[in-house]
Amino acid sequence: MLPFFGETFGNPSSVHDFGQEARAGVDAARKRLADFIGARPDEIVFTSTGTEADNFAIKGLAAAAQKKGNHIVTSSIEHHAVLHSCKKLEKQGFQVTYVPVDGYGMVNPNDVAKAVLPSTVLISVIHASNEVGTIQPIEEISKIAREKGVFFHTDAVASVGTIPVNVNKLGVDLLSLAGHQFYGPKGVGALYIRHGVRIAPFIDGGIQEDGKRAGTENVPAIVGLGKAVEIAEHEMEPAAERCWKLRATMEAGIKERIQYVRVNGHPDKRLPGHLSICAQYIEGESMVLFLNMEGIAASSGSTCSSKALKASHVLTAMGVPPDVAQGSLLFTLGRENTAEDVEHFLRVFPPIVERLREMSPLYGDMKKKKGQ
Amino acid sequence: MLPFFGETFGNPSSVHDFGQEARAGVDAARKRLADFIGARPDEIVFTSTGTEADNFAIKGLAAAAQKKGNHIVTSSIEHHAVLHSCKKLEKQGFQVTYVPVDGYGMVNPNDVAKAVLPSTVLISVIHASNEVGTIQPIEEISKIAREKGVFFHTDAVASVGTIPVNVNKLGVDLLSLAGHQFYGPKGVGALYIRHGVRIAPFIDGGIQEDGKRAGTENVPAIVGLGKAVEIAEHEMEPAAERCWKLRATMEAGIKERIQYVRVNGHPDKRLPGHLSICAQYIEGESMVLFLNMEGIAASSGSTCSSKALKASHVLTAMGVPPDVAQGSLLFTLGRENTAEDVEHFLRVFPPIVERLREMSPLYGDMKKKKGQ
Repeated sequence: MLPFFGETFGNPSSVHDFGQEARAGVDAARKRLADFIGARPDEIVFTSTGTEADNFAIKGLAAAAQKKGNHIVTSSIEHHAVLHSCKKLEKQGFQVTYVPVDGYGMVNPNDVAKAVLPSTVLISVIHASNEVGTIQPIEEISKIAREKGVFFHTDAVASVGTIPVNVNKLGVDLLSLAGHQFYGPKGVGALYIRHGVRIAPFIDGGIQEDGKRAGTENVPAIVGLGKAVEIAEHEMEPAAERCWKLRATMEAGIKERIQYVRVNGHPDKRLPGHLSICAQYIEGESMVLFLNMEGIAASSGSTCSSKALKASHVLTAMGVPPDVAQGSLLFTLGRENTAEDVEHFLRVFPPIVERLREMSPLYGDMKKKKGQ
Repeated sequence: MLPFFGETFGNPSSVHDFGQEARAGVDAARKRLADFIGARPDEIVFTSTGTEADNFAIKGLAAAAQKKGNHIVTSSIEHHAVLHSCKKLEKQGFQVTYVPVDGYGMVNPNDVAKAVLPSTVLISVIHASNEVGTIQPIEEISKIAREKGVFFHTDAVASVGTIPVNVNKLGVDLLSLAGHQFYGPKGVGALYIRHGVRIAPFIDGGIQEDGKRAGTENVPAIVGLGKAVEIAEHEMEPAAERCWKLRATMEAGIKERIQYVRVNGHPDKRLPGHLSICAQYIEGESMVLFLNMEGIAASSGSTCSSKALKASHVLTAMGVPPDVAQGSLLFTLGRENTAEDVEHFLRVFPPIVERLREMSPLYGDMKKKKGQ
């Protein structure tokens, strides 16, 4: 990325050499990303974030299709970028059906099929849950979408770069992703738009990104996303295998050492490094703070709503009672995590839980009731 | 910026130390930028570009105010980020009045006053034209806006960091700016939102930027914008003085050496380093290509629409005939430009114009008519 902050500082829309060198950097990244997900370069629009890509997909498709219909089908466990975009469309006269999930956070394709109306213009279902890691049956849902003649968007922000993602295999028309989710820089995301899908621009202005996304391109970040793809081509699969094993050790270790813990998400159909748990009788936020003192970075619920202090809508949709959901913790294992990290975690985590439970009146009440 | 790509890689929404260090970087940049433009830190929302800030201002205010009224007043020389946002609102039932400009590209505040209706919810007038450099009478327009009880936005993307900008002196409620316009990085802009102004979020999702702009913050770019402000605090005014002089030499030199040239924009009320000209009988794009071979980076019309190949809407609004506007060229002198650069330009530019005119049938026809 560095040259694009320095000597190659040009604006890709400029005709002169400074601009054209920047353009070449952007084009190379676009080609690399397109190849990585099975798309054509002209089907990729760079955005500033995965959230912007989701807004663009939902609002842009709704705007382009509103003469055809005003109904959208999505799930109850989407990222807020999708859910809140849908909520805004509801205020503007759209109707949205939120299909439920089972206890694993899994959408049933039959529920999607049943929710589709003649007025449905878009189905949007997350590829892998950013909160509990469950991977949705996207291929089955895309078949339904095609049969019904409805466009299909998937938010793949948590999955691209972590597990193999191919837009043709998945059968999607629109797909959102973000660079910093797989070791790329912040400040860059992308929306895949299948050739022929009509979508209104979300950010209006100049003619950047083939008229689909106005505003000067974030050249260094786009180049960085391309580099992250290049690295992921080699490292994604071995890292996934390692993370899967570390995660299993971590899950087993927690269950062995700590009572009243629930592990969230599907046991097999899941992201390799995501581990979501609920430790009853204590608050997730307190565990995050104590773990931080041990050098362990965890989050309670989604990072994007860490300040909201509400029970996660994903856990709620999965049927987790609010008092249990309060004690939610999300760990994401990555390329650099080791078996030693997991050992360290399993050493320090049980005493933290114990200490917090001793301070918890709820825990005391429960023990009294049980006569312990 | 570099530490925020490396060791300080956290997500500012995270509660753990990695996140909080990133948060501190973002907060420091916010404070610095706020001080620089006379705002409070909580009145600054970071965006990905100036274009996004303009979209947010126009569409966000329109959405929040639509129960009050559906009329917007703007000018005919706005950046496309404002104009195309207004065009989109027109499709959604808003009415927009585009006030004209005089031959210098200057808006007359009386025209703005006359355009305001009881249903007007927003006035948006660019601070300094990115194409011709003319600085608009923002203080007079803001008085009108206040008298009429209408919110006032200015697109200050071309001016912030180049000339002094103070939101209270200007009297604006909303102000857009972009980092890379004053030596900061690409990928970051900001919208100033005066305390108490109701505006709907433009990008929906998580609770970043106090719920006003969802999506993971581009931490390194925001930190870079803060650094660009710090440098501008010292270098902006001396650079403006130097650019003003270099520009005057350049303008005088062009007029002295080349016939049939028009200099665009106001002679005094202007950005210090912007020089916009129209060389008749030739195309701006050809001059850009020939200048590029001499190491000179110029643009024909706005960079953001360089591929559009239409006569600039700004020059058209100023009454420049389409055939003259075709030969438009924009030079922007900056901190690093020297007297030698201007000398070099004045040496190479006249032969380029001569050569292109010799190839131009229009020029031949004109000379024949004049019997030259």
